[in-house]
Amino acid sequence: MSILIKNGNIITSSDNIIGDIFIESETISAIGKDLNFEADEIIDATGKMIFPGGIDPHVHLSMPFMGTFSSDTYETGTRAALFGGTTTVIDFILQTQGKSLHSALEDWQSRATGTAVGDYSFHMAVTDFNENTKPEIKQFIEEEGITSFKTFMAYKGALMIDDRQMIGLMEEVKKYGGLINVHATNGDVIDYLVQKNLKEGKTAPLYHYLSQPEVTEAEASERFIDMANYTGCPGYIVHMTCEGALNAVRNATKRNQDIFVETCIQYLLLDASLYENNFEGAKWVMSPPLREKKDQETLWAGINQGLVQVVATDHCPFMWEQKLLGIDDFSKIPNGHPAVENRMELLFSEGVKKDRITLQKFVEVSSTNAAKIFGMFPKKGTISIGSDADLVIFDPNEKHTLSARKHHMNVDYSGYEGWEITGKVKTVFLRGKKAIDNNECFAEKGFGQFIRRNKVQNKI
Amino acid sequence: MSILIKNGNIITSSDNIIGDIFIESETISAIGKDLNFEADEIIDATGKMIFPGGIDPHVHLSMPFMGTFSSDTYETGTRAALFGGTTTVIDFILQTQGKSLHSALEDWQSRATGTAVGDYSFHMAVTDFNENTKPEIKQFIEEEGITSFKTFMAYKGALMIDDRQMIGLMEEVKKYGGLINVHATNGDVIDYLVQKNLKEGKTAPLYHYLSQPEVTEAEASERFIDMANYTGCPGYIVHMTCEGALNAVRNATKRNQDIFVETCIQYLLLDASLYENNFEGAKWVMSPPLREKKDQETLWAGINQGLVQVVATDHCPFMWEQKLLGIDDFSKIPNGHPAVENRMELLFSEGVKKDRITLQKFVEVSSTNAAKIFGMFPKKGTISIGSDADLVIFDPNEKHTLSARKHHMNVDYSGYEGWEITGKVKTVFLRGKKAIDNNECFAEKGFGQFIRRNKVQNKI
Amino acid sequence: MSILIKNGNIITSSDNIIGDIFIESETISAIGKDLNFEADEIIDATGKMIFPGGIDPHVHLSMPFMGTFSSDTYETGTRAALFGGTTTVIDFILQTQGKSLHSALEDWQSRATGTAVGDYSFHMAVTDFNENTKPEIKQFIEEEGITSFKTFMAYKGALMIDDRQMIGLMEEVKKYGGLINVHATNGDVIDYLVQKNLKEGKTAPLYHYLSQPEVTEAEASERFIDMANYTGCPGYIVHMTCEGALNAVRNATKRNQDIFVETCIQYLLLDASLYENNFEGAKWVMSPPLREKKDQETLWAGINQGLVQVVATDHCPFMWEQKLLGIDDFSKIPNGHPAVENRMELLFSEGVKKDRITLQKFVEVSSTNAAKIFGMFPKKGTISIGSDADLVIFDPNEKHTLSARKHHMNVDYSGYEGWEITGKVKTVFLRGKKAIDNNECFAEKGFGQFIRRNKVQNKI
Amino acid sequence: MSILIKNGNIITSSDNIIGDIFIESETISAIGKDLNFEADEIIDATGKMIFPGGIDPHVHLSMPFMGTFSSDTYETGTRAALFGGTTTVIDFILQTQGKSLHSALEDWQSRATGTAVGDYSFHMAVTDFNENTKPEIKQFIEEEGITSFKTFMAYKGALMIDDRQMIGLMEEVKKYGGLINVHATNGDVIDYLVQKNLKEGKTAPLYHYLSQPEVTEAEASERFIDMANYTGCPGYIVHMTCEGALNAVRNATKRNQDIFVETCIQYLLLDASLYENNFEGAKWVMSPPLREKKDQETLWAGINQGLVQVVATDHCPFMWEQKLLGIDDFSKIPNGHPAVENRMELLFSEGVKKDRITLQKFVEVSSTNAAKIFGMFPKKGTISIGSDADLVIFDPNEKHTLSARKHHMNVDYSGYEGWEITGKVKTVFLRGKKAIDNNECFAEKGFGQFIRRNKVQNKI
Repeated sequence: MSILIKNGNIITSSDNIIGDIFIESETISAIGKDLNFEADEIIDATGKMIFPGGIDPHVHLSMPFMGTFSSDTYETGTRAALFGGTTTVIDFILQTQGKSLHSALEDWQSRATGTAVGDYSFHMAVTDFNENTKPEIKQFIEEEGITSFKTFMAYKGALMIDDRQMIGLMEEVKKYGGLINVHATNGDVIDYLVQKNLKEGKTAPLYHYLSQPEVTEAEASERFIDMANYTGCPGYIVHMTCEGALNAVRNATKRNQDIFVETCIQYLLLDASLYENNFEGAKWVMSPPLREKKDQETLWAGINQGLVQVVATDHCPFMWEQKLLGIDDFSKIPNGHPAVENRMELLFSEGVKKDRITLQKFVEVSSTNAAKIFGMFPKKGTISIGSDADLVIFDPNEKHTLSARKHHMNVDYSGYEGWEITGKVKTVFLRGKKAIDNNECFAEKGFGQFIRRNKVQNKI
Repeated sequence: MSILIKNGNIITSSDNIIGDIFIESETISAIGKDLNFEADEIIDATGKMIFPGGIDPHVHLSMPFMGTFSSDTYETGTRAALFGGTTTVIDFILQTQGKSLHSALEDWQSRATGTAVGDYSFHMAVTDFNENTKPEIKQFIEEEGITSFKTFMAYKGALMIDDRQMIGLMEEVKKYGGLINVHATNGDVIDYLVQKNLKEGKTAPLYHYLSQPEVTEAEASERFIDMANYTGCPGYIVHMTCEGALNAVRNATKRNQDIFVETCIQYLLLDASLYENNFEGAKWVMSPPLREKKDQETLWAGINQGLVQVVATDHCPFMWEQKLLGIDDFSKIPNGHPAVENRMELLFSEGVKKDRITLQKFVEVSSTNAAKIFGMFPKKGTISIGSDADLVIFDPNEKHTLSARKHHMNVDYSGYEGWEITGKVKTVFLRGKKAIDNNECFAEKGFGQFIRRNKVQNKI
Repeated sequence: MSILIKNGNIITSSDNIIGDIFIESETISAIGKDLNFEADEIIDATGKMIFPGGIDPHVHLSMPFMGTFSSDTYETGTRAALFGGTTTVIDFILQTQGKSLHSALEDWQSRATGTAVGDYSFHMAVTDFNENTKPEIKQFIEEEGITSFKTFMAYKGALMIDDRQMIGLMEEVKKYGGLINVHATNGDVIDYLVQKNLKEGKTAPLYHYLSQPEVTEAEASERFIDMANYTGCPGYIVHMTCEGALNAVRNATKRNQDIFVETCIQYLLLDASLYENNFEGAKWVMSPPLREKKDQETLWAGINQGLVQVVATDHCPFMWEQKLLGIDDFSKIPNGHPAVENRMELLFSEGVKKDRITLQKFVEVSSTNAAKIFGMFPKKGTISIGSDADLVIFDPNEKHTLSARKHHMNVDYSGYEGWEITGKVKTVFLRGKKAIDNNECFAEKGFGQFIRRNKVQNKI
Repeated sequence: MSILIKNGNIITSSDNIIGDIFIESETISAIGKDLNFEADEIIDATGKMIFPGGIDPHVHLSMPFMGTFSSDTYETGTRAALFGGTTTVIDFILQTQGKSLHSALEDWQSRATGTAVGDYSFHMAVTDFNENTKPEIKQFIEEEGITSFKTFMAYKGALMIDDRQMIGLMEEVKKYGGLINVHATNGDVIDYLVQKNLKEGKTAPLYHYLSQPEVTEAEASERFIDMANYTGCPGYIVHMTCEGALNAVRNATKRNQDIFVETCIQYLLLDASLYENNFEGAKWVMSPPLREKKDQETLWAGINQGLVQVVATDHCPFMWEQKLLGIDDFSKIPNGHPAVENRMELLFSEGVKKDRITLQKFVEVSSTNAAKIFGMFPKKGTISIGSDADLVIFDPNEKHTLSARKHHMNVDYSGYEGWEITGKVKTVFLRGKKAIDNNECFAEKGFGQFIRRNKVQNKI
């Protein structure tokens, strides 16, 4: 099977050209001007942009929660991702404290294998690092192709590890060529504020926000960065939201340290004023919470400064009925919001079209950097010879409106209802297969593959 | 004329593939796997790397000095650059205080036109900004294709402009889409220290170094960054050498500011201990001077942090006889050292081979970023469809030794005499012409073209 | 002549006691509880506080300006100071560029000698540092008892010295045990903005403010601090107004540097919104201008952090008629505002009474620190055995209203008209003489003495 | 009983005079020149300095440890303190986790009451903050006169509280007018490193040092400062040792925050090279450990910048036999070193005599500030009317040598054996009683009183 895409405006993290792309089987085999190749299918991309398939390295699909699950399965979630131009996602396996990492892996595999429509990989969230789980680190990196390990500095008693475990884990992960991801907020302080607010009868979503002040994220980010510096372990801070935390990274540059930073599309576009409207705010109850406009400015600047490398989503949708579990207690609102389908279009419309970032930067933070950081490059994350033919044909000028009525995520509200967007995903290829075209999905359940990943490095 | 380069390891600032490059006339028309194109010439690049032609945005050729000139002409300088894998250089036109910018332009054109072997462009150094020269800014940007304006915060009475001129110039340059380059050192303090040292009989090259302490560069960098922030004019600090100056840039990230930074290969590799050996140190008398090992660490880190975008040379060679002008007075030693031919190989050998930077970063700082910052992209700075076929075929494993006996720069000493290098430029294409092959130059005097540049932006 | 002041609440920078003070001739000879000494006069201070006489180290009396003078003479100015509890002032001698320091000294002496009612000293403002004026530094310190040297980084062409002169002066001043005072704003940038605004027809007082943005002060403060660090010369920044400048001092603490900082009462209490009311704003046209509320917060914090040591006034009054010189051009409004009489009461009422500073801090910043920094301690600045009996008997609870109708400064408006104040100067002693009592002055013209000062040190 | 001390050079944190001090009963009633008062005893202090009695707010007397106690009792410890010019100490009551604060108070009282020779007070170390202990905070402040609460961020499982307890405690302490003291090091990271080193067979005292790297103290200090800022609770960091930690305080000044800082005499004078000499290093095994010379420089600078307010000792002596408990395992070496007797003389000799601090600063950090911060002022900490007659008559020129053979602390080694000192405590008064004279102690066991303390404030 071969495909020739003609006259597209091909954008990579480096380049911006008009040309043709020739796909043979699952990969790209040539790029050129006026390629006169025979092909099984020829597509005219004149007037369209072509991006590398998006990579969202932060999603939670079928995530167990209070006896139920986050509402997108591997099927619905990866399909929705494809509709939005994201061809690969990375989900988080959550270890149960007291059990092994492998038992959690099996649990997650049982839900993902044969189910996903788009490609996926896993981070392994280590919630209990001890003598039993220590040898599993090497095994995950060398045998499972899972090279990144998530840690939580919050959610005490459930997911949180203390600094003693953290530094031990860092030494082990570094030894075998892995990377530590971190949810960096001070869980102790947050727990205290949550309990204090509830005790005072402050139960609305607004108090979710007020229980996680900026300093809790800034502090934990600094602490994590200090430990990463001491151990030399590559570190990656997930879902950064605020100036205080980014300034911790900026300060660390002075001791010649690098740390990878991910923000999410919502932190770039939404702010905490959404929590002021009673329980409606539950739609955006997530951790960390939305912040202030000054924090949005900081995060956009961080992207352009090269200090924020990735824009993800932390996609973790819950039906409104599930959100209602917290109607009387903000701490019972399931944390998360749907975004995996909207990320690329929002980032293009609000970022590129409003001159906040260049086209190259758009590709870098929506795809290329995640592939490089997480050991999937050059298979994923670029438009280049030999790479997987994961491509998004994109109309940069088409206007449309986001709405729960139209989206493909399995959730009955949109965090961006009514937003007017410029730029639309038209056609998506995944490993050479036309997965999306004309608002229809042609990839089957189970088409998505698990992507084994390589060891990682401190430099990209 | 068409050329097919087969099976090279093609490196861009984004990608790293094995493939073929097809050149038609002056530009690249296809990249692919096993391209079966007919070509006038077929070159086997198996086992070789292929880089975009290097861009050195900081050279001084035939620069007038004390009645004589820097010892490389446009012919010898650009030819030596080609031997070293650098296909484009940007030189500095120096305005004479009291005269117009255009008169200086004509002067520089008289030496460059019809002479250069490799491609070149100009920065316009504004040394006297006043009501007469103000309208020339627009003309240079819109008519001459010269969009970057150099300023000196040092060399009072000759090249230095004061802050009043600087801020006025910034407003004008910003208005028309240009960029300010700056030599950022506190000229007043340096002048004082030079005179003080000379008065105390301290005349050796070491005192050149001691007359320009780190604080003079850190201070001026901060001041420039402050003014750039206030005016919003894009700014580019040339030849940064030290931690203090880079920390000024790092501090500025906290107010969401970006500033472009160039360092030079010598500041990454050499240190001030070279000044301790009597007059021998004159070889490395340049401004700013070489610094300390801790500064080298800072600059390498800055490259990886994305805060230093360009590695140039400030190539400004003088014959040893010319250096001897300062035998009794370090302030009379002509400032500058030869490096344009050595930059790419040194950066590869000391940077890539020693795991300080990735291959992608190597391309970024030796070529791509300079093209983007200075408005020559995508014509220059990448290996992509439609770009100029400026290519370096490079043997990453060949070992050789640098020496004045072998180099092609018109200067009788080398700053790197006897350095053992891994990696060698084998073949160089400039706009599709095989300019260098097998240690021989096939491009003629006058083959080099003046490159008109586009307006610039704050983001790359 | 002996005086016994009974049962006062004596406040020093260290202590807070109830006790008696015994004065013999010009100095204090005992402090105690229930002192049963015979005395020529006994004063009951029950319920009153007793402070050391205030020291205002920043005033301009009879300052030459455009053919006229600032409106307070040494007589009216020092008398007004006494009414406000300030027993000693330090004025600035301004060198005329091209002339000697001594000729300026003689000029200032001609106006001050035999005229002052309160005690006074001089700073020597060096506006032209060259081979002729260099030897005068030693003479001023060792022969004239004038040990502090003022420099201007602004007012180009009139008062400004460049960095080359600055660093030379620093070396000379350090050698002989003096101190450099600095007006730290970037004169070049300000000049540019002034001309730009005027050219655009922006002539109101508001543009005085907008021509001196915070960055001009922050930048120059950093530059001065860098030079002071390099030379090791004790430095003192006068009239600091803003966060950016204080942060330069805070940053310098990290390299273990100290720098003295003075703010003025107006920068703690007034803000730039006063410039918005058309020409009325001319009352507060001074350089630097009033700033923002956030800057007030910073300055109060700086006092408590021990990083701001002195609260002065920069008292430089002009009659409204004089201010009208700038009715059509803000740059022609004479810079300055009257405050010497109000400083102590404002600082007490707004500082101590509003719990922003302690009583000890009040004494420290209004008197003691200035005495220590400028070499007048322990003669001045404290209530202690052997010190000059410069005392303020103060009613901490009396409420009154500030007004030009009541003040003794020779100026026809008040910068604080109608302000309600808690705390009032009741009786003032200068060198044992009851100078002020019951709103009447008993010290004669000429009673004020010139205070010779000692060499200074970096530490207080 | 009355005493007249004649012609001493009286030094306070503000003043420096020659004069007489008149003591009636326990307090000072007059200070003056040539006081002709009748007195029961007249002492000639000509040529001597007189300081306020020293206050050491950080000692551990009879501290329970592994079934034994730190080797100085309240009797021997406070007597030794008096010999060294320290008239008041503050000890730490350690709560047993699971028990009440009051039960620990009673335990400590049982050892102190009737035993101490010099005056003393208590900090209450809260190691278990919960609903039961919460109401005790108010009781301690309002009923017991114990207004400062110590917390440990290290010693997990024994003394450490987590951030959740910390922030809860801060809110409670702030509400009632207290202060939080903190041992700020990251206990988790230290525990990890201790276990790692021991597991690797690294058991020498050097590994005590290497298990507590600077970052563990810098990190915890930042975290504490963040929490103090968030809650608004006054905070005091005990025994600060290093640049990283002080820089956290310096950074906090930029958000207008104040935090009190104590260092100890050993961190100013000794460095980690002492750990290199095998088990000899056990003499200085304490937590945090001694640091580097650059840290000493930082701490001296911090004192002069006003950012370090107190020089204490963390006096916690153990006999050499006790130290030998850790001969095979550094983690079993009892932490602590003897210094309470040497503090004042060392600080004078190394600080004042070597021009690192002024005489005023000496008094401030050795006495006055501790009295103010901990609510004992003006009863303690100054030489002033009505204050306790706690006085040290000091010969600033007498040279002597420190040695375990001569000292009065109950410990068989000295941390400063053989150090030559300039300046010697000659006579010490405690509440008007001549406690020390001529190397003899005249105060009895039980003479020392418990000092109830007042509520505290953020400002001194």
